[in-house]
Amino acid sequence: MDQPAVGDVIGEMMRDAYAVRTGIGPRPLAGGRVPRPVIEIIERDDGLINGAPADHYLGEPAEWQPHDHRALRLCRGHVLDLGCGAGRTALELQRRGQAVTGLDTSPGAIEIARRRGLRDTVVTTIDEYARATARYDTFLLLGNNLGLFGGAERAPVLLAALASLANPGARIIAQGTDPYGTTDPVHVSYHERNRSRGRLGGQLRLRYRLLATEWFDYLQCSPAELETLLKGTGWQLKSIDDADRPYYLAVMELTP
Amino acid sequence: MDQPAVGDVIGEMMRDAYAVRTGIGPRPLAGGRVPRPVIEIIERDDGLINGAPADHYLGEPAEWQPHDHRALRLCRGHVLDLGCGAGRTALELQRRGQAVTGLDTSPGAIEIARRRGLRDTVVTTIDEYARATARYDTFLLLGNNLGLFGGAERAPVLLAALASLANPGARIIAQGTDPYGTTDPVHVSYHERNRSRGRLGGQLRLRYRLLATEWFDYLQCSPAELETLLKGTGWQLKSIDDADRPYYLAVMELTP
Repeated sequence: MDQPAVGDVIGEMMRDAYAVRTGIGPRPLAGGRVPRPVIEIIERDDGLINGAPADHYLGEPAEWQPHDHRALRLCRGHVLDLGCGAGRTALELQRRGQAVTGLDTSPGAIEIARRRGLRDTVVTTIDEYARATARYDTFLLLGNNLGLFGGAERAPVLLAALASLANPGARIIAQGTDPYGTTDPVHVSYHERNRSRGRLGGQLRLRYRLLATEWFDYLQCSPAELETLLKGTGWQLKSIDDADRPYYLAVMELTP
Repeated sequence: MDQPAVGDVIGEMMRDAYAVRTGIGPRPLAGGRVPRPVIEIIERDDGLINGAPADHYLGEPAEWQPHDHRALRLCRGHVLDLGCGAGRTALELQRRGQAVTGLDTSPGAIEIARRRGLRDTVVTTIDEYARATARYDTFLLLGNNLGLFGGAERAPVLLAALASLANPGARIIAQGTDPYGTTDPVHVSYHERNRSRGRLGGQLRLRYRLLATEWFDYLQCSPAELETLLKGTGWQLKSIDDADRPYYLAVMELTP
């Protein structure tokens, strides 16, 4: 059986989801005639595979989860929206008159974000972008993008990149998911397996139609584990809002 | 990365979809707290992967596609529902007082069908069941189950099995999808690739959570191709109803 090619999974998916929602661009069809739903597929390194409708990536504020609204109220100054995708949250900040830059590694996602009106965008990795001269007051990681912290090896590298882009008093606002509320043996045994390998997260890749991403570490951790990851990075956990458990909002600040 | 284990994909999926729809049994949750949609994942042997919500497998008649209703009006005598799944169509035939047997290879799907009230069920392959003494007047293959014809090698074997279970004048009512209405290069090049290998269909497997099915041939063919497959099998194409293109209903009868 053929292996899927590595490509711009997020971009292709966003383009299709955008076409379904707006009627702009070719809509995905089954048999050339009937609408096909746009489903994001997430594969985990133990063989678990899950699908979820992709439309929420284009959700208007009225469709958001409550914690997304609370997160935006915490933004101040110049905002860098990391993994901004099709611009869901960055567009709303822009509408509110806030200075906001959308960063994503997916050219296709940024193309959709720009088509939807997002003005300030960057297609690159945060590691590359850390060499830029721009400075930010808020780093925003919504839509589970606390996962981009990766794990014990990746987190300090990412946090150093953010520190080098930070104005004094800058904060990170990140939405994560606490994975430990489940008793599902599929998940409990996976957590055990990861811990026995000295890992917090687990590897996953995204697939869409013919494309896959590379496998990458994506962190699901508890607030307590997050606090441990921050040690020695210069970033300090200021608050946890877990009103929408298992989802939570973490605010981190750069200590002077 | 771990390979998924071969298991009862359809059964696990039906059980979860049933729990979501009825509240009976443990519902799939993300993070142990928030509902997770039940998505069927279909992998094709060229690396294509698609997801689709699984709830339609439990659809009540009011939610069906029009051709499903037309198919049921064509049933007569004792009906064998092949690949009956959770009993969507067999249950409705039973409600109408028609003699109907539901056959599926998935123990989990049949368990759900029985829990929903389907009385006459068999867990086996059609090849095994062909040795049974039961006789039928209608073989029903809905929900794209014309795909079970497989291809040029499998179709005559399946059709012989059905012939051996057939009363005089028996008919097959099968719903298929004509794949050739598309201009999507992802599909057009796949059709070409299959034809260049002397194949009509293509291999696919289903996945759900930690499980996969074996790879199997699943036929998507035009009515003209179907007619070619029937040659020499004793079954004759009597009618095609393609009012809901790309979907169609094919009626085949055993020639005396």
